[in-house]
Amino acid sequence: MNALSLNSVVLSENEKELVLLDQTLLPNEVKYLHLTQPEDIWEAIYSLRVRGAPAIGVAAAYGIYLISAQLDTDDMAAFCANFRKQKEYLDSARPTAVNLSWALNRMEKVLDENKNVLPVPDMKNRLLQEAHAIREEDIAISRAIGSLGFDLLHPGDGILTHCNAGTLATAKYGTALAPVYMALENGWSDLRVYCDETRPLLQGARLSAFEMQTAGVDTTLLCDNMASLAMRRGLIDIIFVGCDRMAANGDFANKIGTSAVAILARHYGIPFYVCVPTTSIDLSIPDGDHIVIEERKSEEVTEMWYAKRMAPEGVKVFNPAFDVTDHDLVTGVITEKGIACAPFGDAFHALGIC
Amino acid sequence: MNALSLNSVVLSENEKELVLLDQTLLPNEVKYLHLTQPEDIWEAIYSLRVRGAPAIGVAAAYGIYLISAQLDTDDMAAFCANFRKQKEYLDSARPTAVNLSWALNRMEKVLDENKNVLPVPDMKNRLLQEAHAIREEDIAISRAIGSLGFDLLHPGDGILTHCNAGTLATAKYGTALAPVYMALENGWSDLRVYCDETRPLLQGARLSAFEMQTAGVDTTLLCDNMASLAMRRGLIDIIFVGCDRMAANGDFANKIGTSAVAILARHYGIPFYVCVPTTSIDLSIPDGDHIVIEERKSEEVTEMWYAKRMAPEGVKVFNPAFDVTDHDLVTGVITEKGIACAPFGDAFHALGIC
Repeated sequence: MNALSLNSVVLSENEKELVLLDQTLLPNEVKYLHLTQPEDIWEAIYSLRVRGAPAIGVAAAYGIYLISAQLDTDDMAAFCANFRKQKEYLDSARPTAVNLSWALNRMEKVLDENKNVLPVPDMKNRLLQEAHAIREEDIAISRAIGSLGFDLLHPGDGILTHCNAGTLATAKYGTALAPVYMALENGWSDLRVYCDETRPLLQGARLSAFEMQTAGVDTTLLCDNMASLAMRRGLIDIIFVGCDRMAANGDFANKIGTSAVAILARHYGIPFYVCVPTTSIDLSIPDGDHIVIEERKSEEVTEMWYAKRMAPEGVKVFNPAFDVTDHDLVTGVITEKGIACAPFGDAFHALGIC
Repeated sequence: MNALSLNSVVLSENEKELVLLDQTLLPNEVKYLHLTQPEDIWEAIYSLRVRGAPAIGVAAAYGIYLISAQLDTDDMAAFCANFRKQKEYLDSARPTAVNLSWALNRMEKVLDENKNVLPVPDMKNRLLQEAHAIREEDIAISRAIGSLGFDLLHPGDGILTHCNAGTLATAKYGTALAPVYMALENGWSDLRVYCDETRPLLQGARLSAFEMQTAGVDTTLLCDNMASLAMRRGLIDIIFVGCDRMAANGDFANKIGTSAVAILARHYGIPFYVCVPTTSIDLSIPDGDHIVIEERKSEEVTEMWYAKRMAPEGVKVFNPAFDVTDHDLVTGVITEKGIACAPFGDAFHALGIC
């Protein structure tokens, strides 16, 4: 199995189904879902069957296309009304990842720009092309981030990552793990990747460890609370993490626990890089305090994959899905346009991010 | 159910069985084991059925008494030889917790001091009294630590703890949670306790959350990687953790992840206290680099309580049971003799710890 052929999100060949790798079943089962209904697509995003900010964006783009294309009408007003209703519905599946609303807004812009010039069938085709473009651009972005991150690596480096920002989280290559795929393309075989398991949903254990091992990388899994000792022992040379939403000052939201990794990295003097497509940088948000953090249900923590309860009945649970990492803990922000260093506002401007 | 009546380790009324609360079954089942055989006692310590440094010490003391008392001999040389063989065997169950070897050495000292003056039946009785004394002293130590810790609290404080250093980890009251029990005795009802779940074996979720909730405390469970966000949000006013072995300079080994909590506390400016009986301070060890860290089997991380695999087959796993926290991250060391602050070597000396 080639890790890069896993294809987290594509449109079916007949262009009538959204095909998602069900990431909740990994690593035990590689199963693809074929979705057509709004409720199923919403549920797939909400339940993290597809996850990772870029992959969610691609899924949302294909999703809104498919749902809109199913409406049998030649009335553009009805088509637009349905589009906007379904867009709002899909957008409600997850509040933190900027790519969900970004992709849906981009699709809506295509709608608005063409609603007075195209008939409905041509509009459907135009939306399809836009969704394809979002996917292709995502692949190009990941390769660009990977190349920039690869330039920071040395043979034999130990790389720590948190959650999964790999090929499974994007259309291909990933963001935080893209440098590793670039290293493999360049014939490097001695990198060591350490994957935080990433409680409560274990994306690091189930997804990052799975895709890195599938790619033939020397992969070591550790519990989140073991990263400090791994750093103390000198096992970690560099840290790459992904990003769900970055504010104008470089503060960013990513999977819960990312801020702890950044604080540990600062303590041990290890470079900490955030790999982020510029589409995930939201300049309308001044800083991390303005990023909404999704709070999820307590059973994710207490019931451990439905085997048996791992905490007493009725205990209160603190279960935020993301946390915010302060920009002053970040060594560099790797975007597809270049690496930004502090002060990040100026650096984003210099890279043409606006 | 009264949390303080849980009794993690006692001798049966007929003085022929070691009675342990099987902590691997909590919080789903409150079941007591009645043990008499060396292999069963070793397994109970190794498999964390009894855990927590002080409770392990009490279990080892009763255990070596029981095993020795079972030898039907009047020959003191044979009795001593058997004692030493069984002591070495029990001592091999866990390498990091100093109380295991401390309690066994204390029992052996009683043996050595009396082997030329007592006949075997009297020696058995003397060993029983010593084991009882170890348990009673542990209760007094926990109360003393609890009182000193309680003096540091303010009404409404949010207390973060890691792993379980509660009544389940000792003969009674605990170390890190003893201040909470003292607060309850003083009629305080508004403390908030946050329990890190403590991967991989979830002692925080299964044990600390269980005993705090059973004690009627406002208890919130969080994954280890959520502590950073909880601190950022101002939910945590003070941190109490236990300690398995402290070196002469104040560096200490405790459950894996403790060092990360300490680094986060430093970052957020939150006081971080270690609650430690002086018996867990090992002045023969100069610093944390000399503490042996137990590495445990990878299945603890990958197989999630035997439900289904949560990581790919064959992945390498980093699974240390403890980590070392540098003394310069510690606000104070709360012992039964007083609170030591930096420089810890001098402070230990001033408290009469030698």
